[in-house]
Amino acid sequence: MNIALDMWGGDFAPEEPVKAVTQFLSGPHDPSVRLLLTGDQQQLQQLLPADIRSSRSVQYVPAPQIIGMHDHPTRVLKEKPDSSLAAGFRLLAAGQADAFISAGNTGAMLVGSVYSIKVIKGVHRPGISSILPKENGGTGVLLDVGMNPDCKPENLNQFAQLGSLYAKYIHGIPTPRVGLLSIGEEESKGSLLTQAAYPLLKANAQIEFIGNLEGRDVLLDLADVIVCEGYTGNIVLKMAESLYGITQRKGISHPYFDRFEFEQYGGTPVLGITKPVIIGHGISSAKAFLSMISVAEKMISTGLMAKIKASFEKG
Amino acid sequence: MNIALDMWGGDFAPEEPVKAVTQFLSGPHDPSVRLLLTGDQQQLQQLLPADIRSSRSVQYVPAPQIIGMHDHPTRVLKEKPDSSLAAGFRLLAAGQADAFISAGNTGAMLVGSVYSIKVIKGVHRPGISSILPKENGGTGVLLDVGMNPDCKPENLNQFAQLGSLYAKYIHGIPTPRVGLLSIGEEESKGSLLTQAAYPLLKANAQIEFIGNLEGRDVLLDLADVIVCEGYTGNIVLKMAESLYGITQRKGISHPYFDRFEFEQYGGTPVLGITKPVIIGHGISSAKAFLSMISVAEKMISTGLMAKIKASFEKG
Repeated sequence: MNIALDMWGGDFAPEEPVKAVTQFLSGPHDPSVRLLLTGDQQQLQQLLPADIRSSRSVQYVPAPQIIGMHDHPTRVLKEKPDSSLAAGFRLLAAGQADAFISAGNTGAMLVGSVYSIKVIKGVHRPGISSILPKENGGTGVLLDVGMNPDCKPENLNQFAQLGSLYAKYIHGIPTPRVGLLSIGEEESKGSLLTQAAYPLLKANAQIEFIGNLEGRDVLLDLADVIVCEGYTGNIVLKMAESLYGITQRKGISHPYFDRFEFEQYGGTPVLGITKPVIIGHGISSAKAFLSMISVAEKMISTGLMAKIKASFEKG
Repeated sequence: MNIALDMWGGDFAPEEPVKAVTQFLSGPHDPSVRLLLTGDQQQLQQLLPADIRSSRSVQYVPAPQIIGMHDHPTRVLKEKPDSSLAAGFRLLAAGQADAFISAGNTGAMLVGSVYSIKVIKGVHRPGISSILPKENGGTGVLLDVGMNPDCKPENLNQFAQLGSLYAKYIHGIPTPRVGLLSIGEEESKGSLLTQAAYPLLKANAQIEFIGNLEGRDVLLDLADVIVCEGYTGNIVLKMAESLYGITQRKGISHPYFDRFEFEQYGGTPVLGITKPVIIGHGISSAKAFLSMISVAEKMISTGLMAKIKASFEKG
């Protein structure tokens, strides 16, 4: 499998992606994985250790243009076709890569996901998901976490389906429980959006809907998938993420809060498009890139995208 | 000052309210405070210790009807006029009480706040606020936390004004900083609601608007007041609340997380109505009732309601 990796994406690029590539290929790994490195080939070859540099598992895709702070997220793909980010999407769209990973400009990643890569037929709005560390040690999926700050009820219903398939094939949970993030447990409680979404989720035969969840349930083990619009999802995610830094600064050391170091989960996969795209945090470290490679491998090897397609063909 | 207290409100009533009354009057307290206890007088007199029972700081307001699980929140005030909750609102509306505290049915409390007590002229939608413990030891105000799951931009602008006055007079912060909970720092980021609210907040001369805040900022000390619609506010609040229980169960003991024991902050005041009403959690303990009495005292002594009226007369 071919995984395209944007070597100039993120605040600590190319150093951290380079470290990740080195660590990935130095350690035990699936020999069928080939990493397609997009960026400045010459610089990359200088940065990579000799044995990695010439490894048959590495392929260089020269793309020397640099995306800066001032580039416009929605225009940059057209304006800088030879950037490491644009090159990754080109490889993925052409079928030369089976997945694309980047910690570059999030806006540009979302634009590329929808316009360079097609949306799966039947999916109204793709979403981005994140992991939530649960009290019992498990991990839940939360979506949308920011791609769609405003949603219609049917969007939440589709997120439930997308999240369930992700939890099933990537987390290995046979029948993922889906909760609707709301206020109050009763069907009649919540916002106008959640009240309208509830009956759709209840009627969706492709998911295991367990009803409304409240804010206090987010970090517990009541559901494997939690759905909400992207505004609230983003706030929940970032608030959870902030706990790691706070506990670190307070000198509170506990394995529970170590799991709030979101680096270890890598980025957020875009769900609802035809090919695997994983968006990293701007601050992604080598550890985060390694996690993203691992998620990409799973998304490819389980055929997740085909499963999603089949699910949305059913209705 | 006369503070009406619903002695039959909450999961642990009347025992916990009785403990709170006993502790309040046994300890150092403002001698001008008189507690008007609504509920079954005979039972209360049996439960209260002899010296408290006959204290001049206590007045009984017989209201023996019990509100049960199955009473309808919006109808119960009419259907059970002799309940401890309805009696409290009657005292407040008639001017016999200066504030009303109850941990009873939240829905009924909201209905009573709006229909028994008037909304301040100019306020479109009253809101309920909560305290947020900040990383640096301070406390912030978050609103709305559930009274208005769906809001218009102007509602958020008014919440900013209500929250600022609360932070100024109750928390003693001369010029409270107001943040708008959103995605992304830029004015153009966020949901349709926050994008439309941003310019209103920016133009509001009565508040110190500092711009958008993200989920990761909620527990930091960037603002004294954070505004959002009640759906997200409720989820943020309940997620924060859940951290206390989680850390307790994990055996993580640290003063920082002790501050997530929301009991110590008491209930949520209803802001935007003409008189002080404080809604307690169903699980309120004596400690929570004591905090609510303390907040009620402050709301009365600072003349908060008159300050809010004056502020909304200005426009």
